[in-house]
Amino acid sequence: MKKINKKSLQLALLVSFLIFGILALRAQEAPWMRNRVVSPELHADNSVTFKIFSPESDKITISGNWMDGWGASEALIKNDTGLWILTVGPLEPEIYTYSFSSYGIRFLDPANSLVMRDGRRHESMLLVPGKASSLYAVQNVPHGTLSKVWYDSPTLELKRRMYVYTPPGYESGTEKYPVFYLLHGGGGDEDAWSTLGRTCQIMDNLIAQGKAKPMIVVMTNGNPGDAASPGEAPPKKEEDNMEDIFSMGSGVFEKSLVNDVIPFVDKQYRTLPGRENKAVSGLSMGGMQTMNLAFDHTDVFDYFGVMSMGLTDPDPSGRTWFQNVDTRIKNLETKGYKLYWIGCGTDDFLYEAAGNLVDKMKENNLEFTYRESSGGHSWSNWRIYLSEFAPLLFK
Amino acid sequence: MKKINKKSLQLALLVSFLIFGILALRAQEAPWMRNRVVSPELHADNSVTFKIFSPESDKITISGNWMDGWGASEALIKNDTGLWILTVGPLEPEIYTYSFSSYGIRFLDPANSLVMRDGRRHESMLLVPGKASSLYAVQNVPHGTLSKVWYDSPTLELKRRMYVYTPPGYESGTEKYPVFYLLHGGGGDEDAWSTLGRTCQIMDNLIAQGKAKPMIVVMTNGNPGDAASPGEAPPKKEEDNMEDIFSMGSGVFEKSLVNDVIPFVDKQYRTLPGRENKAVSGLSMGGMQTMNLAFDHTDVFDYFGVMSMGLTDPDPSGRTWFQNVDTRIKNLETKGYKLYWIGCGTDDFLYEAAGNLVDKMKENNLEFTYRESSGGHSWSNWRIYLSEFAPLLFK
Repeated sequence: MKKINKKSLQLALLVSFLIFGILALRAQEAPWMRNRVVSPELHADNSVTFKIFSPESDKITISGNWMDGWGASEALIKNDTGLWILTVGPLEPEIYTYSFSSYGIRFLDPANSLVMRDGRRHESMLLVPGKASSLYAVQNVPHGTLSKVWYDSPTLELKRRMYVYTPPGYESGTEKYPVFYLLHGGGGDEDAWSTLGRTCQIMDNLIAQGKAKPMIVVMTNGNPGDAASPGEAPPKKEEDNMEDIFSMGSGVFEKSLVNDVIPFVDKQYRTLPGRENKAVSGLSMGGMQTMNLAFDHTDVFDYFGVMSMGLTDPDPSGRTWFQNVDTRIKNLETKGYKLYWIGCGTDDFLYEAAGNLVDKMKENNLEFTYRESSGGHSWSNWRIYLSEFAPLLFK
Repeated sequence: MKKINKKSLQLALLVSFLIFGILALRAQEAPWMRNRVVSPELHADNSVTFKIFSPESDKITISGNWMDGWGASEALIKNDTGLWILTVGPLEPEIYTYSFSSYGIRFLDPANSLVMRDGRRHESMLLVPGKASSLYAVQNVPHGTLSKVWYDSPTLELKRRMYVYTPPGYESGTEKYPVFYLLHGGGGDEDAWSTLGRTCQIMDNLIAQGKAKPMIVVMTNGNPGDAASPGEAPPKKEEDNMEDIFSMGSGVFEKSLVNDVIPFVDKQYRTLPGRENKAVSGLSMGGMQTMNLAFDHTDVFDYFGVMSMGLTDPDPSGRTWFQNVDTRIKNLETKGYKLYWIGCGTDDFLYEAAGNLVDKMKENNLEFTYRESSGGHSWSNWRIYLSEFAPLLFK
């Protein structure tokens, strides 16, 4: 047996400090137990055990998006050591987000370092592996680069930030690539598609499988009054705040995309020219922007993907995001396009609006692809739509 | 007065859905009140009010790193609407992290979208503005690009990820730049310097002020067994786990930096050649790696910055991270260098070790700059050290 003396103990402490750094420092405030919990624990059959150590609590519930209905939750069971445990599933292969709750307060799983931000809300994340989620996982394939890039937008009078995915081989090569502009929804920002949407993983995997062409993917911030996601921009001046929420229907972001973003991307990156090398798609608010781009900037893009959006009815005062649709839609006929893709879930609150768009396309004898999925207005659907839309581009 | 009818209400709902998206959807599960809380609220004198709505809780405390001592906390006061409130400060200009706690459970400030990950722990973030924190804030200056880049490491037999900061103008120009390799500490990963360390903001601001030369900053993952930060790499094979924690002292990461990372960066980026255009600095474990690089790869770099690290004593069995120091340190004398910078806080648990390094440098008549700060083993110090070290480079 090795003799343990004070010096050894000091060294052991030093080692753990260096290796676990601040974690170890902070462990002082919590029982050792708390740091040994493994959660979530994924079992071979894709059932999942969640655990949290909290002797002081009387009730802890978990709420996850595998459950049916908003606000659904399930109680964990406390054992005699103060460890709360719940096994759920087996769960379908998918990316899930969840949080614990106690006394009306939501909190992350302290044992899980994977966290996703959705708007201003943070949730713990879990990827259940399997065929349906394999595109979302980081696989042993060549990876593209994700860059956070600042550009000048004279249209919006802002220096703005966007994310750019360049495919594997871009930086070391000389080839030119087509560009896919991918737009987020209301409440989101330039961060959303690469985190919640798993764009890098989906593109890496589709490209490695030969299912999608190597392409540049540009993820902008679609909120015209914002320079970047929260905390990443200089503080806004009071007068910069958008007063009228209908400004989102003003088409000003769409103008900035065409006038500011595309020229910047074409200058800064090795892009293939022409509309046949440009695609645009977006979800919800980004779907509205995609529709507007198809109406008003038809000849800029050859590929349009409208996710979870459609033609909404005007309000009684006549205000609407979609003015003069019957006139503007003629551009699609006159100027042509290669693909107009519409995807919506049957439970989506905009399902009817998507149906209106389908009807309007038919009414005008315009070709389109309609993809109806189950589920609602969710990233689960938008990841599927991206996985299906990207392989159709630039072919 | 405008008449409100059902149709208007439906539209209002639709508008809020589109704008606030999932936030609005999720608001269904929580009282409206919860979504109206502003926290933290920063006052003109830099005092800060924290608020959380939780009628069900009996006690809520806040723990933030402006407080003295680990585990220090302060109780919030509940008013009769169920809103908990506490005003603290005025606080010194700085970046702070904090969390709430109730019944032994830690949780984020639900009203604050700014969150920082430190190891596997997430905390809410607050930047108190002022002179001392002005370098950490996003200012209206030209911004560099931050890229998440994958590279091949034959030394570690892994495809690995790193972050690369390219200075403003890099992408649109043809100029070549010097490269600064910046290494994180134990428990950290390639994410740490750009988030907790505010590297992009500090470099943008220093460059804009003419205080630092435009340079490329490369932030690697210094854990030799890891491909990337949690969740960003393919799952590890069992046999890939490092068995001996002393492997961190094996110099294998340092070898991979010299043999894999530097050639990759020189190939992929427009870099200036030679040791006079290469700097390396790191904190804690990264400081150890910087010391090893200075010992063994002296002629690769001209600038070394050792933060919160030094010569630690061997354990009783003789194991140490720093073997044959007296022989290896001779390389510094033989091969020369431009700057050897050591920074440590007086409360740092490695303060004595830093003193040992200072003594060893003196003993060998080697030039160095020693910066002693107050405080301990913390990002507060490491941000200061970066702000002071970067302006000394490549001049």
